[in-house]
Amino acid sequence: MERRGKIYEGKAKIVYETDDPALLIQYFKDDATAFNAKKRGTIESKGIFNNRISSRLFQEVEARGVPTHFARTLSDREMLIKRLEIIRVEVVLRNIVAGSLAKRMGVEEGRRLPHTIIDLHLKEDSLDDPLINEDTISAFGMASREELAQMRGYALKVNGILTEFFGARNIDLVDFKLEFGRCPAEGGRILLGDEITPDGCRLWEKGTGRKLDKDRFRRDLGSVEAAYAEVERLVTR
Amino acid sequence: MERRGKIYEGKAKIVYETDDPALLIQYFKDDATAFNAKKRGTIESKGIFNNRISSRLFQEVEARGVPTHFARTLSDREMLIKRLEIIRVEVVLRNIVAGSLAKRMGVEEGRRLPHTIIDLHLKEDSLDDPLINEDTISAFGMASREELAQMRGYALKVNGILTEFFGARNIDLVDFKLEFGRCPAEGGRILLGDEITPDGCRLWEKGTGRKLDKDRFRRDLGSVEAAYAEVERLVTR
Repeated sequence: MERRGKIYEGKAKIVYETDDPALLIQYFKDDATAFNAKKRGTIESKGIFNNRISSRLFQEVEARGVPTHFARTLSDREMLIKRLEIIRVEVVLRNIVAGSLAKRMGVEEGRRLPHTIIDLHLKEDSLDDPLINEDTISAFGMASREELAQMRGYALKVNGILTEFFGARNIDLVDFKLEFGRCPAEGGRILLGDEITPDGCRLWEKGTGRKLDKDRFRRDLGSVEAAYAEVERLVTR
Repeated sequence: MERRGKIYEGKAKIVYETDDPALLIQYFKDDATAFNAKKRGTIESKGIFNNRISSRLFQEVEARGVPTHFARTLSDREMLIKRLEIIRVEVVLRNIVAGSLAKRMGVEEGRRLPHTIIDLHLKEDSLDDPLINEDTISAFGMASREELAQMRGYALKVNGILTEFFGARNIDLVDFKLEFGRCPAEGGRILLGDEITPDGCRLWEKGTGRKLDKDRFRRDLGSVEAAYAEVERLVTR
């Protein structure tokens, strides 16, 4: 599968066309950003770790009934994916209070929630990815009620699968972000897209609370590469 | 009904106990604030206008099937109300894009929405009343799913009633805020509380878009008292 023109370059990934209009190549970079790109840096080999982690996790959720855009791994940093029309909504699942939820509610991080919270954010850097709700998504024509219900159902299923998967590896899945899209080649059906990596998940070692995710970069905690390498080792073992 | 101790003083109202533990007196002040009290001022006779407007609108929605805390008007600035345990959620209904929705979505004010949007905000000045969702309200124990469904149902019903009511008076109901509470004297059932006034509604004259609400104060448009007086005249005619 040959790389053709670049169609998108984001903060952590580049997407290229291929000779098949239904398939794209997703290339994982080492670039890291935080706070809507106000903080920038590089995490050595992050692209390689994230490609491996994401490939493994997409296969895991796909095998357990959640359709994804993952086709196959092409190289150290490249993944072949189905072309999606991305829905401009970030679906954030939260099992333990952390990050922006703690700030919004004025509470400490670390409290386990009585049930999962799904936060929906508009995917728009220029507006700082604001929290929005289903009424707004529907009224602005970004996704239908039916699509939102399906995304919510898939998201909760992914949460169950990954909570169990990471739990068996002594890691608490604190929160994580998912993105979905419509697959034109499959009649517009909703697939899980983007990536599932420590860039978009909070992963805490059970018992100690040691952080194994991008918060090590955001908060200057050190051992950033080592954390990504550890997650890669645990996920792909 | 005699006023006893003050139990709450907010930006626009004071609430007093009475000799009946199930009833309170809500006193309407002329004080006006905006932008979470960063801007302060006085709108002469606002308390009188708002007491009359709110009394009339509570009676209107009550007569059409939405239970409210309104008991009766006591004086120019005083309303007798049922004591509620306030649910710390502001329910904002939007029919036309304006205010914080326009800012959040990066769009102009004035577009009529294809369907009503309900935004839920945490009622907490120290956190700037952030937008939240039902998952969060439930997980933090602020209201149950059943209570939220009831509040949503009542809110949409109030929207229908008031859209028609103001429409008949040549006014577009752009958006407005409602608050609900549990009535201990009535087995904890949900009642509409607080007030319905130009402090918490956006009211635009049909055709011209002339603003008849607190935006005249927020945005220094002048003729603030006249706008409140005009709404009072239209509502109580």
